Amino acid sequence: MSTPVPVPNTPQLLSAAAPLREAAVPLPLADVLIQDHFWTPRLQVNREQGIDIQYGHLQDVGALDALDFSHPQPPLPIPVINNNQVTPVMWWDSDIAKWIEAASYSLETHPDPRLENLVDDAVARLAKAQQADGYLNSYFTGREPDKRWTNERDWHELYCAGHLIEAAVAHVQATGKRTLLEVVERYVALIAQVYGPGPGQKRGYPGHEEIELALMKLYRISTNPEHLALAEYFVNERGQQPAYFDLEAVARGDNPASFAFGSNEYAQAHKPVREQNEVVGHAVRAMYLYAGMADLAAELGDTDLLAACERLWDDLTTKRLYITGGLGPSKDNEGFTFDYDLPNDTAYAETCAAIALVFWAQRMLAITGDGRYADEMERSLYNNVLAGVSLDGRKYFYDNVLESRGDNHRWDWHPCPCCPPNLLRLLTSFGAYVYSRTESQLWVNLYVAGEAQVQLAGQDVRLKVQTEYPWDGEITLTTELAQPATFILKLRIPGWSQGAALTVDGQAVDTQNDQGYVTLTREWKSGTEIRLSLPMPVQRVWAHPAVRADAGLVALQRGPVVYCLEETDVHQHLHQVVLPDTSEVTAHFEPSLLEGVTVLTAQGRYDLPSENMALYSSTPPGAETISVTAVPYYAWDNREPGEMRVWLRRS
Amino acid sequence: MSTPVPVPNTPQLLSAAAPLREAAVPLPLADVLIQDHFWTPRLQVNREQGIDIQYGHLQDVGALDALDFSHPQPPLPIPVINNNQVTPVMWWDSDIAKWIEAASYSLETHPDPRLENLVDDAVARLAKAQQADGYLNSYFTGREPDKRWTNERDWHELYCAGHLIEAAVAHVQATGKRTLLEVVERYVALIAQVYGPGPGQKRGYPGHEEIELALMKLYRISTNPEHLALAEYFVNERGQQPAYFDLEAVARGDNPASFAFGSNEYAQAHKPVREQNEVVGHAVRAMYLYAGMADLAAELGDTDLLAACERLWDDLTTKRLYITGGLGPSKDNEGFTFDYDLPNDTAYAETCAAIALVFWAQRMLAITGDGRYADEMERSLYNNVLAGVSLDGRKYFYDNVLESRGDNHRWDWHPCPCCPPNLLRLLTSFGAYVYSRTESQLWVNLYVAGEAQVQLAGQDVRLKVQTEYPWDGEITLTTELAQPATFILKLRIPGWSQGAALTVDGQAVDTQNDQGYVTLTREWKSGTEIRLSLPMPVQRVWAHPAVRADAGLVALQRGPVVYCLEETDVHQHLHQVVLPDTSEVTAHFEPSLLEGVTVLTAQGRYDLPSENMALYSSTPPGAETISVTAVPYYAWDNREPGEMRVWLRRS
Repeated sequence: MSTPVPVPNTPQLLSAAAPLREAAVPLPLADVLIQDHFWTPRLQVNREQGIDIQYGHLQDVGALDALDFSHPQPPLPIPVINNNQVTPVMWWDSDIAKWIEAASYSLETHPDPRLENLVDDAVARLAKAQQADGYLNSYFTGREPDKRWTNERDWHELYCAGHLIEAAVAHVQATGKRTLLEVVERYVALIAQVYGPGPGQKRGYPGHEEIELALMKLYRISTNPEHLALAEYFVNERGQQPAYFDLEAVARGDNPASFAFGSNEYAQAHKPVREQNEVVGHAVRAMYLYAGMADLAAELGDTDLLAACERLWDDLTTKRLYITGGLGPSKDNEGFTFDYDLPNDTAYAETCAAIALVFWAQRMLAITGDGRYADEMERSLYNNVLAGVSLDGRKYFYDNVLESRGDNHRWDWHPCPCCPPNLLRLLTSFGAYVYSRTESQLWVNLYVAGEAQVQLAGQDVRLKVQTEYPWDGEITLTTELAQPATFILKLRIPGWSQGAALTVDGQAVDTQNDQGYVTLTREWKSGTEIRLSLPMPVQRVWAHPAVRADAGLVALQRGPVVYCLEETDVHQHLHQVVLPDTSEVTAHFEPSLLEGVTVLTAQGRYDLPSENMALYSSTPPGAETISVTAVPYYAWDNREPGEMRVWLRRS
Repeated sequence: MSTPVPVPNTPQLLSAAAPLREAAVPLPLADVLIQDHFWTPRLQVNREQGIDIQYGHLQDVGALDALDFSHPQPPLPIPVINNNQVTPVMWWDSDIAKWIEAASYSLETHPDPRLENLVDDAVARLAKAQQADGYLNSYFTGREPDKRWTNERDWHELYCAGHLIEAAVAHVQATGKRTLLEVVERYVALIAQVYGPGPGQKRGYPGHEEIELALMKLYRISTNPEHLALAEYFVNERGQQPAYFDLEAVARGDNPASFAFGSNEYAQAHKPVREQNEVVGHAVRAMYLYAGMADLAAELGDTDLLAACERLWDDLTTKRLYITGGLGPSKDNEGFTFDYDLPNDTAYAETCAAIALVFWAQRMLAITGDGRYADEMERSLYNNVLAGVSLDGRKYFYDNVLESRGDNHRWDWHPCPCCPPNLLRLLTSFGAYVYSRTESQLWVNLYVAGEAQVQLAGQDVRLKVQTEYPWDGEITLTTELAQPATFILKLRIPGWSQGAALTVDGQAVDTQNDQGYVTLTREWKSGTEIRLSLPMPVQRVWAHPAVRADAGLVALQRGPVVYCLEETDVHQHLHQVVLPDTSEVTAHFEPSLLEGVTVLTAQGRYDLPSENMALYSSTPPGAETISVTAVPYYAWDNREPGEMRVWLRRS
């Protein structure tokens, strides 16, 4: 019942040799049906608006035309970045690749001949742009043919290659067409000649990680050991001394000390990855690297490498992550700063970084089966990730503040348009995050109404899910299978929930869970009804006291959804709003607001200046009582422009 | 008893024709004796350390040598500013001039032949550097002779000229030597040829205001109407359309739209000054302009111009001033942003800006006699200004945050060293801010132990002041004069005080005051003892609710002194400290701390993470009780490096 995909291997379970826990893999996209009041509209606008809009932007900026070297190269867009050293044109190929990848996922669930033609055309352009030796990069071939492989630190060649690989894997899986796969296999063969530990090779690695996880995807369908070896080389060579980026800078006549971002921490290349304990540098680079490390650890059964991933995960989630699942607070390096530095009004929290965290979390969950990875995956998805795109699917946030004076708004397009196609591909492949499976287990990681189809115990099993999650915590799962069969169903008990209750065919089942999942092992019959009840009271959330930006403040969360105040619902100057600890916060669903959201309401206070109050006064301000309405953070900035605030004053 | 100064005019009262209130003038520096436990050490290190240290820096950077064009010009220091368009070398002459001005004030109160020789040498170098046509600017003469007067917006020529004028006036008043005065008179004559409304003249004005107030100082000793006229021209031409800075940019081949600071608001040149209602742009520029406007308004009896000053004052002090008397919150433009934008941890609040506010406040006070100007003068002096220099007189803050994570420290020197010599000249002329006088009145504006000498009602009057201000509000003033005489004594009742009490020779006198001053009119005899008692309870201060950065926070002030917490006295992570409203704050003097300060102590709370607290938790943090000690803000960063915080959490 899966779409037949004539490729060497469909996504496969880990090799039996791996000493790690039998890792789970996502279900094929075509085997996941999503019919959900919350997600279906989001996925629909993404598919029906996003794919075409973004294709239009790629045409308009000239990214597609840049693949045709017989025409004049399209002008360099402004702004250029870092004193003219880097231009967005350098990563146009990655934008095209992410679009192909996203469109391919869409074709897997929603066949569309018109779209398939557009994809085929883009693939054909890429194939035509490939050079005789396998090289494929429109910027360097079209504009700077002498500068190939001379500045991997800044110039994104391997990054673009990585996205081409991901696109190729998605394309062949969706369509069975091998053109792009063969293109990237030739390109990878060239890269493996250029980079490596052998004589005459460059001992380099990517400035912007991405190709590592891409090579692992490629290896899983190619089973070509060179692909695995190259990924392994890139991961292990990273951060070795002497520093490749410094040698490379000297070789091209630059002073490594004048690197715009100061240190090789920027690209997580300051020390070998197995010795890294802190998430540092550019956040997207970091997440892509860690995702690739996790893939490699799983494939090789490399527990040391997995341990590094776990240390980095702990560092991120205990000290450097926003409540919205955003990460990388600083605009300066698009990345990390220091422990507990999580400013709200200047939060960078790039949409791509939250998406990349979802990628990493998915892998960690697959390897360890630990629900804490699912918790963070869910946190990012329902908050920072979804905030990255407007409800109409047409505008995008690049950075995601948690407090706005009213001057933060989504873009039609961005000079560095990495986030929109990243959203596009995440949402077109959303089904891959909902379920996963091992040989004998079906895991439900997110609660989304719809259906999963999976072969277990030798027969086709269908699991139907009914729920109004995230607005309601009642979930009904129903099995459908021809013959009774024994397999394991794993149901996630979210970290945010307390008092979960479970029945199977009306009989209470203990919700004692192992690492965030209840394990149901039994002989299943068709029509068995599993009811999971996750109470969803409104939660006041406090940050760890070390978080300076949130000191004395409280946030509101219900289920996985983080809330915010918007000026349009409350009052201007949201910093004057106080939510007393004693004030009861109630939730109700508003079907006509923001395409249907549960809002929170409470009685609050609003500071007022005392009469003729000076700028500074020994008389405290007064206050009036106001009604406070909070809306889901992901839905903010979809109405009148105005202030927004996640962390609220309390008393 | 004044030092005889053989110049045409000592600082003089406004012309009788002026319709404004009979304005007050400062007492000559030599007539003010400061013997004060608080100020004397500050003035002493300034004089004994600051003057020599800063001279050394001027030598070391090459600023003095740059005046000798027969030698190779010293190298351009880095960093250059604004994409190479501006270099600190462009304002080296102003640094030298401010140093001469400061040293001259010092010579007035503390004659010192060695220093006088250094000053004379610097003056001689300047005189030698003057060109035949009167031009005097080491940068343009030495390095870019073809670029004179081509970029007044950015290149500080008139700014440097202004400081040379101020230096010349101070020098002649201190020493009677006219060399520098004659140099600047020739230079001003050239400037008056180059700039003006006549045919063939440039209709320009300074990019960085300063020369306006300098010309007014010059005019008051020269009585040369050309000096007044040039000041008047610069003030009135400013902001006229078409915009001179734009025409000038086009003339040199630049695009005005690419001005690094966006708009002519940066230099208060966006509209005629009489139409300005908002303090905008670069804060130091703004303050110097407004000071010059006030001078001109006073001189001409120009009530319209004074009204503009008053509107701008109201705007500043009701919406855009830090509690420390700092101003200009943004590093980007070294200046103003929008109403109530007063961030604490990124406060720019340049030391020069607070000093310049003191200059402006002094003038507004002189013209209006309104104590609210003295209140802000005092606020800046006791807080932001004094914070600008270390207690040992050797290090300087350029920007003055109100909250530090521990990484803000005073500089030995700064790439743009405007603030150190500004502090130097303010502190060597500190006596000028303590008293002022009119024909028949002696005003006591600040309470500083020591003595004032002044001729009133035809005879020498001496007023002795005893006080431990600002640590104590008890002030005893004693008169000394040969014969009984009738004159008016004006004693300031600070805006921060409540319940002031006053006796004259033991008899209670009503402290009902007129605009912040008690007026004592009587026939005074020698030995009359006036006791003013200003109660100094610790005050909790609240910011206007519109100030986002201070929402829910409280500051501590006692008398004019604003307090802060320092990590060394309290605890790391000062954001975890809470001062309950119910907690009594007590004051006591610590003679051995920070050269003797009154500290505040209270019981506070310190947030603690709950057990195994996650980064985000639905369990609030706990707290422990801690002792909280606050020290005067001006004295911070004189011990171990650490965090600092003015605005405290409360509960």
